[in-house]
Amino acid sequence: MGIETKIHSLNEAIAKIRSHCQPLPANRIPLTNALGRILRENVQAVEDLPPFDCSTRDGFAILAEDTSASFHVIGTIHAGDWRPRELKSGEAVRVATGAPLPCSGLRVDMQENVRKHGDLIQIAERENARNFRRRGEDAKIGQLVVSSGVCLDAGKLALLASAGHISPLVSPCLRVAHFTTGDEIIPPDQVPRPGQIRDSNSILIRSLLHSCGCEVLQMHLPEDFARAKLEIEKRKTEIDVADLILVSGGASVGDKDFTQPLLEWLGFEIIFSQVNIRPGKPLIFGVNGPRKAFGLPGNPLSHFVCFHVAVTTALAGLLDAAPPQFLRGELAVNLTETLSTRETFWPARLEIAFGGIRLHPLVWASSGDITCLATANALLRVRINQGPMEAGSEVEFLLTGGVVGS
Amino acid sequence: MGIETKIHSLNEAIAKIRSHCQPLPANRIPLTNALGRILRENVQAVEDLPPFDCSTRDGFAILAEDTSASFHVIGTIHAGDWRPRELKSGEAVRVATGAPLPCSGLRVDMQENVRKHGDLIQIAERENARNFRRRGEDAKIGQLVVSSGVCLDAGKLALLASAGHISPLVSPCLRVAHFTTGDEIIPPDQVPRPGQIRDSNSILIRSLLHSCGCEVLQMHLPEDFARAKLEIEKRKTEIDVADLILVSGGASVGDKDFTQPLLEWLGFEIIFSQVNIRPGKPLIFGVNGPRKAFGLPGNPLSHFVCFHVAVTTALAGLLDAAPPQFLRGELAVNLTETLSTRETFWPARLEIAFGGIRLHPLVWASSGDITCLATANALLRVRINQGPMEAGSEVEFLLTGGVVGS
Repeated sequence: MGIETKIHSLNEAIAKIRSHCQPLPANRIPLTNALGRILRENVQAVEDLPPFDCSTRDGFAILAEDTSASFHVIGTIHAGDWRPRELKSGEAVRVATGAPLPCSGLRVDMQENVRKHGDLIQIAERENARNFRRRGEDAKIGQLVVSSGVCLDAGKLALLASAGHISPLVSPCLRVAHFTTGDEIIPPDQVPRPGQIRDSNSILIRSLLHSCGCEVLQMHLPEDFARAKLEIEKRKTEIDVADLILVSGGASVGDKDFTQPLLEWLGFEIIFSQVNIRPGKPLIFGVNGPRKAFGLPGNPLSHFVCFHVAVTTALAGLLDAAPPQFLRGELAVNLTETLSTRETFWPARLEIAFGGIRLHPLVWASSGDITCLATANALLRVRINQGPMEAGSEVEFLLTGGVVGS
Repeated sequence: MGIETKIHSLNEAIAKIRSHCQPLPANRIPLTNALGRILRENVQAVEDLPPFDCSTRDGFAILAEDTSASFHVIGTIHAGDWRPRELKSGEAVRVATGAPLPCSGLRVDMQENVRKHGDLIQIAERENARNFRRRGEDAKIGQLVVSSGVCLDAGKLALLASAGHISPLVSPCLRVAHFTTGDEIIPPDQVPRPGQIRDSNSILIRSLLHSCGCEVLQMHLPEDFARAKLEIEKRKTEIDVADLILVSGGASVGDKDFTQPLLEWLGFEIIFSQVNIRPGKPLIFGVNGPRKAFGLPGNPLSHFVCFHVAVTTALAGLLDAAPPQFLRGELAVNLTETLSTRETFWPARLEIAFGGIRLHPLVWASSGDITCLATANALLRVRINQGPMEAGSEVEFLLTGGVVGS
């Protein structure tokens, strides 16, 4: 079958995934649908921001150096109006917040600081603040305002809207087909008989993929390979357009483990089938032109680790986004049981405080453990043959969830 | 109109919001719809996890202390099977990964370490690892596995699925009605005439609310109060079921600013109408029984700040979630221009590295500035009358976006 049986280091595996996962074609979509998408172009300001000098107060515009005792109010400018007019000494124009100033060389006095007597005003208290925004003070026309490769969040979308950039070029929404395998797996609403376990990988993978903005098709496959292929044939049209195929379980060497043959039957070349990590060693990666596939070892913690170290690397490549980043923090307590011939990804709770990033390793004994996922928001990366690590040691980690204070 | 004109400190404002925003009734929903929802109950394991001793390897189960030179293979147990059987010395059962062990007092040897001769096996290399998971080693029946008040992410959902908890009690999806105001505001696809500006608040607020899991109804209201009320009447049925009303702009003291009268017309009691923060001072908070409302000062940066310091506090209260948390980090560079009679929320870029959380203040001159939102992922909290702050100073902040390494 031509399967490469060499065991890869994680760094080798990541390099292979990166080299095979090139950005899929970008397309333009309405700004209103772009939350969470990866921007694939640099965006410049198409006009100055703000496009005109405008008041930041409800108040009165006068000449900047005008020291008149009182001012004659010669007009009103609301936000949205614009009435160019040169002011003379002793003249004032009433302006609303956001209103364009009628000429240059002005200042604005807040109405709270002004006494009115019919059409005359007196400035009771002069501020140092000029109380207006100068044209182009936030950005000049042509200036880069949002860079290619960023994930479009609320602030960036608001900036694109301000700049009139209403059809951004973005990466596509990835389509992912996810197959679970194993006759011992039952739906979560059923009570397991001895030997059966409830399916937790479906909701884990779907939720992780949804959090990454992917569309997800999910199917459970029978353990019999021939029957599994028949099930797939029924939905071949949908499966054939998936950018990424994930198969849960069946990645090991047991006689019912068919993930590799299945991926090969689907036209994928197996790039690697083992990575020297704990948990998650029987991790398979396959390539079929622009389409990619992973076989994920069936235990929940292996799934969690393989998703965060490998699948997200592939997603980033296909989307042209920043790859997952290993950060550095401080171990909050001593960590023993670190000695392994494999790189270990240790579920942890990250807390931040003045003085540093503190990582609390969580208890786990096996890749089948799942209770640590109740609180994990990070994975510690423990090197091969690492001895016991003391509290305060520097430790590499991947962020897998939201950050909290200590 | 009974409007309280006292200016509140932010802490006073937060305390008032918290006291008025009590959790809305929780309801049970399918696990598959619960991503991002707030859990409103403690969840215990309904059986031991794992529910039986099970192999972690494809291999052979033998008595733990059995030193026989060879073993007779008396059967096979696949994952999903269960065949209770007491083993004798010299007997082995073939087991797949995940398979339940046939009795207690066993160990499993990996098939890679075993030589087969027909029905006989010899163990070529003995491991120290026992290679099975003991019943209940991850969680005992009745043990708390997920706590009330957490946001359900992929890992927690997987744990609930494992525990068979398929209809969690969660907070509702909040319904928010958002009105923009101001005749100078034009849709982002139009080219502004002098005095006009493109609407960026609609997409900012919608995206922030979607990121918090809310449903959003949005309308632009005409600047004429009577016409604005007519527009609202047309969609009164939808608006009346909104848990939260947000009004962008019109919060100031200008003669066209109708946010307070509008909220009062909608039945809200104004709790406060000014908060001593910069930007965002004309922040309005109103209460109408279980329904809440905010008037947000119209500039984009004021929106961003008021959303993160005030609206999220209300959302947390209504959802029974943890309130936004002020964290502490280290200023990466000197920060001047800090002197103000108002608490200042300064857009910043947070980066994390071994040694600490480093906060890079971004350039902004006015609440109308928006380019800083391209990179902001935090808001620094600068105290009233704070003098210049040196690089390395401790600074309080709110996280507003994803975290990156330096």
